[in-house]
Amino acid sequence: MYLRKLDDLIYHGVDRISSGELGKQMGLTPSQIRQDFSCFGEFGQQGYGYRVAELREQVARILGMHRGLRAAIVGVGNLGHALVENFGFEEQGFNLVAAFDSSPGIVGTVISGIPVYDSAALTDWLRRNPIDIIVLTVPKRIARSMAETVADCGVRGIWNFTNIELELDRPDVRVENIHFSDSLLTLGYFLAEQDSAEKNG
Amino acid sequence: MYLRKLDDLIYHGVDRISSGELGKQMGLTPSQIRQDFSCFGEFGQQGYGYRVAELREQVARILGMHRGLRAAIVGVGNLGHALVENFGFEEQGFNLVAAFDSSPGIVGTVISGIPVYDSAALTDWLRRNPIDIIVLTVPKRIARSMAETVADCGVRGIWNFTNIELELDRPDVRVENIHFSDSLLTLGYFLAEQDSAEKNG
Repeated sequence: MYLRKLDDLIYHGVDRISSGELGKQMGLTPSQIRQDFSCFGEFGQQGYGYRVAELREQVARILGMHRGLRAAIVGVGNLGHALVENFGFEEQGFNLVAAFDSSPGIVGTVISGIPVYDSAALTDWLRRNPIDIIVLTVPKRIARSMAETVADCGVRGIWNFTNIELELDRPDVRVENIHFSDSLLTLGYFLAEQDSAEKNG
Repeated sequence: MYLRKLDDLIYHGVDRISSGELGKQMGLTPSQIRQDFSCFGEFGQQGYGYRVAELREQVARILGMHRGLRAAIVGVGNLGHALVENFGFEEQGFNLVAAFDSSPGIVGTVISGIPVYDSAALTDWLRRNPIDIIVLTVPKRIARSMAETVADCGVRGIWNFTNIELELDRPDVRVENIHFSDSLLTLGYFLAEQDSAEKNG
């Protein structure tokens, strides 16, 4: 959240910002912000504010964005395509190096500079090319077995778009799930609440 | 979270579940679960557990899923395509009725039963066809103006995939942002922490 906000401030040419103003823009109290940033060392100065660019660098460093973690995507359907072409892994500090799919029509092609290999070659490839993170955009029915497979090959992070809850029972592998429906249902809930407030109000 | 869990239990043929077991599976305390569900009326019985299907219906009702909210998607690039074809709006209780894009190659086509209209006709169309929720998958640079436009046409919910923070300053319009990068950066942070723990351990 801080990273997004700081990027936004940089984009708008803001050099310095006080904890009060940052708090106002983010819906946080100034003391919460000072506390969050206190562990980063001295980026703020009383009555002077934070230096936005330095704070942004520090947040990015804490998030490990300077490490160039290597990623590969498995499943190049519509969603996989969208991620390869539009997500901007590099901006986030990740190095997307390969894509895998089982469809003959796409294997052997190159999408936005990323080669698409045959999924059948995935395990061999992973043993020769260590990867930190797999972006999982395969169909539901093969999601779990694919996750197990890549974990067996030493992958430590899975970014899961398959709409199933992956609980791998491996403390060394972290899974982050993207649940599209959660936020859509939140929207629906808000509209339902609004309607019943109008009805009763 | 409850909805996903209950759907998962139904899928696996579980009819009843105790608050203790549900808590164990979800990482919550039984008392937290009993408290969350207490407002729904009597779905649990001491020593007997919750009736999964009824509880699921009640959660879905609270989320407004029975109301068939009408949705349209604006922007049919790779991501828009992926959502129209694979997301399953209907399963979530939403009625996706139309898609809009400005690219001549796609206007006039039908994707998974959803007609694609010209974006130039959007405002006229919205005035004749009231829509509750717009799924926004347009390029960044037109995201804000498009959001303002649909809000002017009476849309009350925006599901924002454009990667910019939309703050519309309209209390009557709710925006839910999908921030892909947040969860990827969380993954990266976890791996960085793991490495430094190994180095220091």
